[in-house]
Amino acid sequence: MDLIHQPGVAEQIERALAEDVGLGDVTTAATVRPDARGRARIIVKEEEIVFCGGPLIAPVLARCGAQARIRKLAGEGAVLRRGELAAEIEGLLAGLLIGERTALNFLQLMSGIATKTAQFVRAVAGTHARIVDTRKTHPGLRAVEKYAVRVGGGYNHRFGLDSGILIKDNHIAAAGSVSGAIKLARQAAPHTLKIEVECETVAQLEEAIAAAADVVLLDNMTLEDIRRACQLAAGRVQLEVSGNVTLATAGDIARTGVDLISVGELTHSVRAADLSMRIEAF
Amino acid sequence: MDLIHQPGVAEQIERALAEDVGLGDVTTAATVRPDARGRARIIVKEEEIVFCGGPLIAPVLARCGAQARIRKLAGEGAVLRRGELAAEIEGLLAGLLIGERTALNFLQLMSGIATKTAQFVRAVAGTHARIVDTRKTHPGLRAVEKYAVRVGGGYNHRFGLDSGILIKDNHIAAAGSVSGAIKLARQAAPHTLKIEVECETVAQLEEAIAAAADVVLLDNMTLEDIRRACQLAAGRVQLEVSGNVTLATAGDIARTGVDLISVGELTHSVRAADLSMRIEAF
Amino acid sequence: MDLIHQPGVAEQIERALAEDVGLGDVTTAATVRPDARGRARIIVKEEEIVFCGGPLIAPVLARCGAQARIRKLAGEGAVLRRGELAAEIEGLLAGLLIGERTALNFLQLMSGIATKTAQFVRAVAGTHARIVDTRKTHPGLRAVEKYAVRVGGGYNHRFGLDSGILIKDNHIAAAGSVSGAIKLARQAAPHTLKIEVECETVAQLEEAIAAAADVVLLDNMTLEDIRRACQLAAGRVQLEVSGNVTLATAGDIARTGVDLISVGELTHSVRAADLSMRIEAF
Amino acid sequence: MDLIHQPGVAEQIERALAEDVGLGDVTTAATVRPDARGRARIIVKEEEIVFCGGPLIAPVLARCGAQARIRKLAGEGAVLRRGELAAEIEGLLAGLLIGERTALNFLQLMSGIATKTAQFVRAVAGTHARIVDTRKTHPGLRAVEKYAVRVGGGYNHRFGLDSGILIKDNHIAAAGSVSGAIKLARQAAPHTLKIEVECETVAQLEEAIAAAADVVLLDNMTLEDIRRACQLAAGRVQLEVSGNVTLATAGDIARTGVDLISVGELTHSVRAADLSMRIEAF
Amino acid sequence: MDLIHQPGVAEQIERALAEDVGLGDVTTAATVRPDARGRARIIVKEEEIVFCGGPLIAPVLARCGAQARIRKLAGEGAVLRRGELAAEIEGLLAGLLIGERTALNFLQLMSGIATKTAQFVRAVAGTHARIVDTRKTHPGLRAVEKYAVRVGGGYNHRFGLDSGILIKDNHIAAAGSVSGAIKLARQAAPHTLKIEVECETVAQLEEAIAAAADVVLLDNMTLEDIRRACQLAAGRVQLEVSGNVTLATAGDIARTGVDLISVGELTHSVRAADLSMRIEAF
Amino acid sequence: MDLIHQPGVAEQIERALAEDVGLGDVTTAATVRPDARGRARIIVKEEEIVFCGGPLIAPVLARCGAQARIRKLAGEGAVLRRGELAAEIEGLLAGLLIGERTALNFLQLMSGIATKTAQFVRAVAGTHARIVDTRKTHPGLRAVEKYAVRVGGGYNHRFGLDSGILIKDNHIAAAGSVSGAIKLARQAAPHTLKIEVECETVAQLEEAIAAAADVVLLDNMTLEDIRRACQLAAGRVQLEVSGNVTLATAGDIARTGVDLISVGELTHSVRAADLSMRIEAF
Repeated sequence: MDLIHQPGVAEQIERALAEDVGLGDVTTAATVRPDARGRARIIVKEEEIVFCGGPLIAPVLARCGAQARIRKLAGEGAVLRRGELAAEIEGLLAGLLIGERTALNFLQLMSGIATKTAQFVRAVAGTHARIVDTRKTHPGLRAVEKYAVRVGGGYNHRFGLDSGILIKDNHIAAAGSVSGAIKLARQAAPHTLKIEVECETVAQLEEAIAAAADVVLLDNMTLEDIRRACQLAAGRVQLEVSGNVTLATAGDIARTGVDLISVGELTHSVRAADLSMRIEAF
Repeated sequence: MDLIHQPGVAEQIERALAEDVGLGDVTTAATVRPDARGRARIIVKEEEIVFCGGPLIAPVLARCGAQARIRKLAGEGAVLRRGELAAEIEGLLAGLLIGERTALNFLQLMSGIATKTAQFVRAVAGTHARIVDTRKTHPGLRAVEKYAVRVGGGYNHRFGLDSGILIKDNHIAAAGSVSGAIKLARQAAPHTLKIEVECETVAQLEEAIAAAADVVLLDNMTLEDIRRACQLAAGRVQLEVSGNVTLATAGDIARTGVDLISVGELTHSVRAADLSMRIEAF
Repeated sequence: MDLIHQPGVAEQIERALAEDVGLGDVTTAATVRPDARGRARIIVKEEEIVFCGGPLIAPVLARCGAQARIRKLAGEGAVLRRGELAAEIEGLLAGLLIGERTALNFLQLMSGIATKTAQFVRAVAGTHARIVDTRKTHPGLRAVEKYAVRVGGGYNHRFGLDSGILIKDNHIAAAGSVSGAIKLARQAAPHTLKIEVECETVAQLEEAIAAAADVVLLDNMTLEDIRRACQLAAGRVQLEVSGNVTLATAGDIARTGVDLISVGELTHSVRAADLSMRIEAF
Repeated sequence: MDLIHQPGVAEQIERALAEDVGLGDVTTAATVRPDARGRARIIVKEEEIVFCGGPLIAPVLARCGAQARIRKLAGEGAVLRRGELAAEIEGLLAGLLIGERTALNFLQLMSGIATKTAQFVRAVAGTHARIVDTRKTHPGLRAVEKYAVRVGGGYNHRFGLDSGILIKDNHIAAAGSVSGAIKLARQAAPHTLKIEVECETVAQLEEAIAAAADVVLLDNMTLEDIRRACQLAAGRVQLEVSGNVTLATAGDIARTGVDLISVGELTHSVRAADLSMRIEAF
Repeated sequence: MDLIHQPGVAEQIERALAEDVGLGDVTTAATVRPDARGRARIIVKEEEIVFCGGPLIAPVLARCGAQARIRKLAGEGAVLRRGELAAEIEGLLAGLLIGERTALNFLQLMSGIATKTAQFVRAVAGTHARIVDTRKTHPGLRAVEKYAVRVGGGYNHRFGLDSGILIKDNHIAAAGSVSGAIKLARQAAPHTLKIEVECETVAQLEEAIAAAADVVLLDNMTLEDIRRACQLAAGRVQLEVSGNVTLATAGDIARTGVDLISVGELTHSVRAADLSMRIEAF
Repeated sequence: MDLIHQPGVAEQIERALAEDVGLGDVTTAATVRPDARGRARIIVKEEEIVFCGGPLIAPVLARCGAQARIRKLAGEGAVLRRGELAAEIEGLLAGLLIGERTALNFLQLMSGIATKTAQFVRAVAGTHARIVDTRKTHPGLRAVEKYAVRVGGGYNHRFGLDSGILIKDNHIAAAGSVSGAIKLARQAAPHTLKIEVECETVAQLEEAIAAAADVVLLDNMTLEDIRRACQLAAGRVQLEVSGNVTLATAGDIARTGVDLISVGELTHSVRAADLSMRIEAF
């Protein structure tokens, strides 16, 4: 299922245009003849990006009445350098101008996420660690943001609270113990979900392994602790590391042998990719 | 009208929970008794932030069935330092756990915007320049993001294409000239909107002033050019500077005497404020 | 951006059909074969109208499964006289019958607004006064109604509370004075919006001009007072007149030299244009 | 079921505020302190109206954050004269100002409909004819408009195409004859719906009666024709008259003995009732 | 108006896919190449069904990005036997796999209803009794379920509370008597609706006939009582029987001479028709 | 998170009422005074049910303006016998009558599912097999239906295509082999999801175990085959049986030692629980 058919994405575009266009683009309505045609080129304005979001350009412009034709479009995940062309579109000038900002807002966010993800993926190259995202996404944008992580070479953690079990300190406290919480989760939750447990100590890790957890989340541990956890786990459980992982530290963490490194800033602190749309009338 | 009564904000919360909670939090359902109660404290985990988004906590938790009471809540725009308490809430433990991430996603985004805005505002202190935002917001989140800019001490540029006239190069080209575009806009658009024109040269600036533009946007000009534009304008038109303004350059730009400095990164490249919610059962 | 691409308009059509068609047109389902084809002609049944709403015919009928082709369609704003053809459509008979009333409800409202607007515009011909609308629109229909005003030759006042500043008596009272309110508005509101102030006395008008208001609204003033206000203003501020303006009084008001005349009845008290759809099977 | 619980009405209010308030009332935000309180009085400004829509005031203001208390509220259908008080509300001043126009837009439309309906009802007093509405309502507003007709003393015709059978000329043509169409409708449609047929000649009327139609619609007939139809029908079928019925002609039509007079202008050509909201700070 | 143009049906499909697909089909995304094509055949897996819902296949698959072509499609209401082909579709394999369950969920429900309805219709063959449905439908699915009843040869009772009058015991009690309730309903309700009254005794039936009710509902009466009611009514009123009617009893009930037999289990207790979709890659 | 706070459930109630109530309950409006109060008792009318859906009663009636108080309410999952009271509610009579059918439609569906689920659970008592549901739910009702399965003592399979990996024959074919498909799924899908594979032969089962699948689905196998699969698996993989499991066969299947038995008819072929609401005026 491609991006634009994913449930909610069309509605997302509708909402974005509703808030940007409202009762109409008064400037364009005043100055541009309805039948004037034009060409728009989306150009990269920074050193290098991983391009993402291209499939949204057509539906955004269609909703603006641009009668647009996509002449060229970089592939999802294409690495583009300064000055390179991400897309070229022809259509009605007014529609291109109306949809420009909304299209770019999607592309810049999504390419920003894909680009940062790719940097983290590069940082752990040569190890078997996966870079995974978190639920720290912009409200209402999870579908497109998790998609962008995949385009950047990362992996998705659970989509939401209903598609993964993650037992944290409060759940452990409520259940009385790590093993108690695991038992309750195994008892009640869909069998299709693995059981992941957040552990803070080696003792908890051992308890989790003994209780047959599938994944253990090591939160905010030192490199040394992570290494010991890997040795202790010895492959009996997947290990995920989280907690303020940066580009500087990701490689070292990956080389401890952990399986998963989750990085909140992939989505919660995104720098927009620098893209501009240059439009010219025919 | 406070934030939660603004049209669309309740729906925004609904959507955020729909995507995060879906068919239910399987972990909490398995491990936490429905009647267990708890207390949540939202704590600052970085040097200093401008807090923003507090009024959304109650409705987010209410929609999670938390039956929550907000015991303490920092004011919108409060400057909080590491370890300080942003909010304290009591309610049903399950509801607090379910709503935690969604509430934080709003707070971290909005406080991130308010914090960055405040930094830019500080950078231009002592001048009469306003820091204003742009339409480079996350799709679907413009209302809360423009609100956060105001909380941070900044000002809003037009909300959307229907609430401001901004004549750019394409509009000028379509109309034939700067003065032609201004004339068309004055003729067609609601009289409640000022006319702002993007100018690239001194000649265009003079033409815009002659045509009685209200505001002129100087895009990507050098400091020297901006200074000359200020002298030329001599108060006959408001001047806005835009184009990759940074914290390092904002002060110098402001001291040229311009009226408005618009900063895309206030909203398009936000670092999430570092806030965590510590929850404990009673 | 044409009418049917304006955000919300498609949804408006959907809603209109939902309330009119509901679970289905039982009469047509019972009596008309699904494959029967027909032709519909929309005919003017009164002396003269300004036609408006034509672009909505196709999407309304499409949503009714009419597989319709628009054979002829009068232009937006065309002046049509009794018996003239506004549109001719061919398609499935059942779909034409199902969509007939909804299409006409839009056309009659919109043409009614355009027609009345054109009458007011004619009444002020030869002056430089603009006829502008108000926010007194039918709930949920503002987009199509403000569009119809433009088609009729009128101008739009602010679209809503977020796209124009209009300081009224209560705002003045809350701020302490006319100049105080203007100062507060200039301080807080987006710089893209002009500042309009409602004034009741000459003293207030002078105060508003001194405080550099952009527009002054003269509400319910006598012709004599309006004339004096024009002399006093002497072009330093735009003047808008409002308050029970009628076709009989609009011309005299316009000849005082005011810039804008806002007319609530353009939209709040519309007589539906008399249009009928004559349908015949092939 | 009262008005505000009717499905769709809450959503209608939401939409009306979304289009009027958008991203916020910039004037009020700039000039009114959030905690200032005020009192609003809704006053009649024309000779006499039938008041309608009162139950919508509270939810509109609640959605604006007005924390309003309705102190006085005229009953639905109350006859109010110039200067009389329709409602008195206390609450936060900002919320009252924000909701003022939307509340009035509903009240003026609904009271306008109720007032005109009452005039028609008065015009047929002393006869047994019912004044009924049509489907010529403003798109999206049928629920509140049909409610207003009832408040004005009129009756509702079918709500939509799914809640009444009305065989018109095209259905007759498609079915081959009046009796053929009636037979098809009786065969296919829910038994809960009466069968109404539009007849243009006496012969058709006789055919409809013979085929046991429940109601016959006489469209655009002369008074003389209507009288003859009444004699012919002799109570065997209900008779409805439609077609450009006016206040001047309604009485004469009613006195022919018809059962129902449907009046499009009750809803398609409404003059807004003249109501104003006077707000004062405490 | 065909099924897919009926208001609400497109939205129904959207919702069904939103809940089934959510953030994406992870299995198909992992294993199926986006450009792989395939063919899907929908096959009957039980003795005999009345097929229903075919027109929904195309829009469901379109929303899944299947780029599907319907090669063969059984007609609505076609009687299909074990092994027979209901539909054959070609398109992108991934889209077919994603939409399979949602399409089948509609088809199995709707064919289940049509099949059961046809059984009841057959059980009363040779009588003039109609099998009608009830309001006992699955929440949110009334449109498609009432459509399936029609496809199965049954008839629709009122669509909802607004499109039929059904006076039950509580209404009678509130009005004081059967005749009082009928009078009130005749007075207040749209004239397009017949008046149906639920009667429990012969005395009530007589009172209802005297008060000119259109239809009388006999609830949970014995065969003997129904026969007597038919004799008493003697065609002056339509008679509907309801209350735990089964396939075993429907024939006998019908032969008493009643006009309508309403059967809740047509829609409230549906056995899904056994259909499977066999998909193969090209 | 209780049922009524689950995202989408409030909207589900809204939709159900919109389709049942539409423009209003004409019968109740005509016959019941708005201030009349009453008491409603929901009574069981069949041998024994597992009650489910109680928390929806209050919000349904609230949306009908019933101002209802729930006096008694059976617990979710309570076993109730013929004549027993499931709920007792007091409120405005009109609101109770309007909401009656919608409330019952939810309760009867959900109690029907819970009751059938409990029967299957009982059938496998004494074994360690879980009864699990499928995605064969009524479109738009998955949330409430999966909840009802849990109330009946069953377990949920994956909620949708995004919260579980289930590799079926087409995925295997597309990937080339069982092990190939498992490898691709492990590579691409979120690590929080287990990998389940549908196997048709013992060879496939061995391949799946070798490739470290988490769960194997045995579809439509004989008891003998299932037994052999259990022996072969020897606990190395969870085994799920599906395919036309009935109450008669479930016990035998469970006793083979399988872990999971999925039953489509829990939700796709539900017999509505027989509940009635008896309402009396005070």
